[in-house]
Amino acid sequence: MNEMRHLMTPMDFSVDELERLFDKAADIEAHLQDYAHACDGRILATCFYEPSTRTRLSFETAMIRLGGRVIGFADASSSSASKGESVADTIRVISCFADICAMRHPKEGAAMVAAARSTIPVINAGDGGHEHPTQTLTDLLTIRSLHGRLGDFTIGLCGDLKFGRTVHSLIHALVRYKGIRFKFISPPELKVPDYIIEMLKAENIPFEEVIRLDDCLPDLDLLYMT
Amino acid sequence: MNEMRHLMTPMDFSVDELERLFDKAADIEAHLQDYAHACDGRILATCFYEPSTRTRLSFETAMIRLGGRVIGFADASSSSASKGESVADTIRVISCFADICAMRHPKEGAAMVAAARSTIPVINAGDGGHEHPTQTLTDLLTIRSLHGRLGDFTIGLCGDLKFGRTVHSLIHALVRYKGIRFKFISPPELKVPDYIIEMLKAENIPFEEVIRLDDCLPDLDLLYMT
Amino acid sequence: MNEMRHLMTPMDFSVDELERLFDKAADIEAHLQDYAHACDGRILATCFYEPSTRTRLSFETAMIRLGGRVIGFADASSSSASKGESVADTIRVISCFADICAMRHPKEGAAMVAAARSTIPVINAGDGGHEHPTQTLTDLLTIRSLHGRLGDFTIGLCGDLKFGRTVHSLIHALVRYKGIRFKFISPPELKVPDYIIEMLKAENIPFEEVIRLDDCLPDLDLLYMT
Repeated sequence: MNEMRHLMTPMDFSVDELERLFDKAADIEAHLQDYAHACDGRILATCFYEPSTRTRLSFETAMIRLGGRVIGFADASSSSASKGESVADTIRVISCFADICAMRHPKEGAAMVAAARSTIPVINAGDGGHEHPTQTLTDLLTIRSLHGRLGDFTIGLCGDLKFGRTVHSLIHALVRYKGIRFKFISPPELKVPDYIIEMLKAENIPFEEVIRLDDCLPDLDLLYMT
Repeated sequence: MNEMRHLMTPMDFSVDELERLFDKAADIEAHLQDYAHACDGRILATCFYEPSTRTRLSFETAMIRLGGRVIGFADASSSSASKGESVADTIRVISCFADICAMRHPKEGAAMVAAARSTIPVINAGDGGHEHPTQTLTDLLTIRSLHGRLGDFTIGLCGDLKFGRTVHSLIHALVRYKGIRFKFISPPELKVPDYIIEMLKAENIPFEEVIRLDDCLPDLDLLYMT
Repeated sequence: MNEMRHLMTPMDFSVDELERLFDKAADIEAHLQDYAHACDGRILATCFYEPSTRTRLSFETAMIRLGGRVIGFADASSSSASKGESVADTIRVISCFADICAMRHPKEGAAMVAAARSTIPVINAGDGGHEHPTQTLTDLLTIRSLHGRLGDFTIGLCGDLKFGRTVHSLIHALVRYKGIRFKFISPPELKVPDYIIEMLKAENIPFEEVIRLDDCLPDLDLLYMT
């Protein structure tokens, strides 16, 4: 019997599991018609406690393209949250209606609360400034498509490296692969936080901090702009 | 020719009709796959003038699981009601789009107004403090599932018996069945309203009012907590 | 290869194209079952930056009745527009998800901006006081159904002829057909604007302005009330 799993952070999947997931994603992309009925009869609930049109519609489109159906709400004001219903109460009922739930919430940890009460898998579609795992998985998949594999490349990360949630998640996700070298390109006031620098040093992962993109462009295999 | 009917209050169906409805519900529950295309090509409109996530998604999930599709709106602010369009105008057009409509509205009687102008069946999914018939039908169906039949039992109703819309509707629905005995359990300030007590006396339906649940628990076949 | 086209104004289609479109519409209406799977696997995005229940649900119902699916949002507050995302950013991503987009926006020209950035056809479902082409096409189709053909009739336009967007669009659409005579019926303060009167004179299209409907009713083949 499979134990039910949730997707809360990009680290919830092992590198091996991600590899299989990305192989599946590549196969779906190449043979979309073969998957047109893969989710027939299944229902996705999109529970968005704050609007995020692109994220919500990406989940809904994916489910629809796989033959499934969608229920849900697009923001808290059009949900019972506006009259004080808790995330725990909502997810308990949603669990009876849907087969899987993608949840977006402005508060850190909300998806964890939902997962604890849910009887269906919950995907964290962003909980405040905390995590947005499918964004990170998409970044990894894009790198894999462009570079051919995850590993053995020099990647430049350019822009706001201090406050950007997605870039921090991406760094954490990438250090699990072999042969990654980082070039951090940012003005001094938007540098990568110290705790990430310490982590890279502790794990002997090569990195360099520069201010001007031109200073490292020739060294890069990939460039990620925040 | 069938005359079109609406569902405005739980009393709109006779006891015989409810029996057939509950038989059908039990059959759907037991053989969901057989009904996966029962509503192919049909459209449900959910017109929710106030948010009620669980109620709205219960209707939408039901329609989807039967093979149908859903259109609608989740709250007044995302509908043309926000620019003053009347319920009557909206339902007249919705009638051209959908095959059936579930309507939620904060004002008593709104569903009746809609039904009067509609050319498709309207289900009252809650009109203010007035009625919420599918809630009552669900309560009856749950009792039937637990007890095996509707009738010949002692039911305890416990909690706020004064202001609770659902418990009043349930009492009215239950008195139509034979051999029902009520135990009303509430603090004195939340007692069943006098008009209900008068009705029970007039119809010779046995009941007792107590303050502590322990005082009647051994007598109960079923316990309903508000 | 077909160049992609958008529908921004009722004049985007030639009279010949409209004739084929209306023939198709009449055929769909007469043989709805034959079209139940015409849009299988296709996705419509309804991007409504202001609520318009009837317009939005008309698009969604049409897509559903043709076998397609729908994603989207019903008002700006439940979309990422509420956090400052631009129409251009949104449509670029929507283009990846959907096959066609119907957009409603309170600002004139918004649909044009979207069309310029979109890689899928965009239908203008109303941009402020500017255009609402499918409304005009529906008016033309209704006239064609009632009169049998577009041309050779006297039409009365009655009501607010000064500020009504739809009536101005309809006049511009009708002058492309042969043998149309207009009777404008309105109080003096709500008369047809001068620029339309000048256009009719320049094109030698017969018209008359009257104040009382009774003054011209016997002359009319059709009467359009604003």
